Amino acid sequence: MEGNVYAIFRDLAIILIAAKLCGILASKLRAPQVVGEIIAGLLIGPSLLGLVSESTFLVDMAEIGVVLLMFFAGLETNLQDLKKTGWKAFVIAVAGVTVPLAAGSVLYFLYYGMPPFGSDAFYTGIFVGVIMTATSVSITVATLMELGKLKESLGITIMGAAIIDDVIGIIVLTLVIGFKNPDVSPLKVLTNTVLFFGLALILGVGGYYLFKALDARYPHTRRIPIFGLVLCLLLAYIAEVYFGIADITGAYVAGIILCNIKDSEYIARKIDISSYMFFAPVFFASIGIKTSLQSLNPSLLIFSILFVLVALAGKIIGCGGVARLLGYRGKDTLKIGVGMMTRGEVALIVMQKGIDVGMIDPSYSTSVILLIVVSSIITPIILKVLYQEKTPVKMPVNK
Amino acid sequence: MEGNVYAIFRDLAIILIAAKLCGILASKLRAPQVVGEIIAGLLIGPSLLGLVSESTFLVDMAEIGVVLLMFFAGLETNLQDLKKTGWKAFVIAVAGVTVPLAAGSVLYFLYYGMPPFGSDAFYTGIFVGVIMTATSVSITVATLMELGKLKESLGITIMGAAIIDDVIGIIVLTLVIGFKNPDVSPLKVLTNTVLFFGLALILGVGGYYLFKALDARYPHTRRIPIFGLVLCLLLAYIAEVYFGIADITGAYVAGIILCNIKDSEYIARKIDISSYMFFAPVFFASIGIKTSLQSLNPSLLIFSILFVLVALAGKIIGCGGVARLLGYRGKDTLKIGVGMMTRGEVALIVMQKGIDVGMIDPSYSTSVILLIVVSSIITPIILKVLYQEKTPVKMPVNK
Repeated sequence: MEGNVYAIFRDLAIILIAAKLCGILASKLRAPQVVGEIIAGLLIGPSLLGLVSESTFLVDMAEIGVVLLMFFAGLETNLQDLKKTGWKAFVIAVAGVTVPLAAGSVLYFLYYGMPPFGSDAFYTGIFVGVIMTATSVSITVATLMELGKLKESLGITIMGAAIIDDVIGIIVLTLVIGFKNPDVSPLKVLTNTVLFFGLALILGVGGYYLFKALDARYPHTRRIPIFGLVLCLLLAYIAEVYFGIADITGAYVAGIILCNIKDSEYIARKIDISSYMFFAPVFFASIGIKTSLQSLNPSLLIFSILFVLVALAGKIIGCGGVARLLGYRGKDTLKIGVGMMTRGEVALIVMQKGIDVGMIDPSYSTSVILLIVVSSIITPIILKVLYQEKTPVKMPVNK
Repeated sequence: MEGNVYAIFRDLAIILIAAKLCGILASKLRAPQVVGEIIAGLLIGPSLLGLVSESTFLVDMAEIGVVLLMFFAGLETNLQDLKKTGWKAFVIAVAGVTVPLAAGSVLYFLYYGMPPFGSDAFYTGIFVGVIMTATSVSITVATLMELGKLKESLGITIMGAAIIDDVIGIIVLTLVIGFKNPDVSPLKVLTNTVLFFGLALILGVGGYYLFKALDARYPHTRRIPIFGLVLCLLLAYIAEVYFGIADITGAYVAGIILCNIKDSEYIARKIDISSYMFFAPVFFASIGIKTSLQSLNPSLLIFSILFVLVALAGKIIGCGGVARLLGYRGKDTLKIGVGMMTRGEVALIVMQKGIDVGMIDPSYSTSVILLIVVSSIITPIILKVLYQEKTPVKMPVNK
């Protein structure tokens, strides 16, 4: 017990230094730092060097890490931009969720054979589709920002779609996890989901005005981010324990509630700092620590490659196709499709959730990691070609 | 296990909101926020409302909290100022440690009777003295800053003495804890202490130049505070596990190593944010959570009052008396004595250490909390009277 307290210093120190060094290396190779941090976990974890192994403390820190990331994503959402892009972004997002969801499930059923409806393997197949749904807003935004296309109509549409995509993706995640649980009927899951979002709406309106008043009276004081964090933790807790909805949904909703107050950027900065100094590296590294390389057999490798291709094609066909139906023409449809195909933290978070509830085997993290690496690297390159700009495309360097 | 992960969200949320609300209330009453946070712990802990009880997670978070506070204190140390004030500050600091140390132990022996030399009760008595030794730099500095006297010769002397006082206090703490352990001979404790500070010196010189190079090449990048934190965690771990020296000593030394690099303020800010958003409230509140009010019998109450009087008088007599011998006259000697009498986090940390190694009963935290409350409230008032300024004395509001 005493020894345990000090072991957390050693584990934390090893994770932080390995994650940062691999993150720096990754960004030198123009890959996102997140990829480096996961690889750091692989390196120091039991599959390779064996310096750090899973512990209750790391599990707790990682869970706080995911919740903070989703809270941050919520805080960074711009509701005004979203309103501007309107129904077009919504329709594109719906296609961007349904097509990969269907394609991913079909891929699983074709590859492993069709399981009986409602069986565990059936839900695993659906879940493979769910993992494919969520576009990573951060990578999309960073790429468009680098290209100077963020504020253009097309850029706003892509961003709006990416944001709505996240929300729908999380609702789908919640529903699928809820349906899987044999104790609850689909009706109860739907009721719970509606009730939770109802509660979130009431809390949202109340919380919004409370924080607006706080913000007006005590701008830029510590109490603002602290109370914001409390709202995030409470919604995560309430969602999970009272409604059976993923804690990350609660955290994301808390972020959305506060994304329009004046100090939302101030809260986001404080959360971001605590996140990158402590919790996020533990979250990403622990994915690597848990990924077992022993399970990477030829069958899984081939599946992973197909998984990546289907996930990328699903977004291009789904979003690009619908964009064409909406009146976009020529390269614009491709820009939308490609702009939506980046995957990042959210895919990892969804996968982690699936592992936690036993819907998917940890060995599939290989497929997800491959998807993130490939999509994060090729999206900026393809977008650059499509926009035919002369300025060099650089991956955003997350210092 | 699953339920446990979510319980940490609830516990954290309750601690953060209670600590902040009580902290705000405390600062409205012109007391330091720290006092409010401890009282918050008392309120929500098992002695009163019973909303939160001790858990491994909270113990871990609190331990990280202490380590971060000491790292921060080290980072904020100004070695230049310290050199300027020179030997006078050093002599005052030595008196400020030895007089309360002796007076505290004598008080315990007089109150509870003289135990045999080397017995457990004997070490408890010595430890009561050790708790009295460390002046809280932050409260002293904040008070002098409020009075506009920080940069005056007398202010620098007080600050220098308060800093050295901390270092000596920590060495004394290390020695006393080491001596108590029956497995190690006093010689071994001394050897270990010397070896650790030797290692710290080597690491310090190496680390200093490494960070200076990093700083020159990558100023204000995330890697600087992250690598700084890694140094802090590693030194805390090495100190505790390989040298039997308190982890907080290691963290403090890490701070001192980095206090002179250009980005030390940058590191301190990142550490401070993570600290006040997460770890420090857990640390202070968990002191309250652990304080059992049931044990507050009349005997302990009288002892606590005497403890406070002796602790305050010890600094005034020790520091003020030596200042007089050094040539200070009139009110200046009193200013030095009173300026040194504030106690804060360090006294709590020392006490916590004593509880952890079984040298002192948790019930004595009542005495320490009383000392912090009383000293933090009366010091600014007395200093104001001594400086006879017309500007109103406000307690620093820690937003």
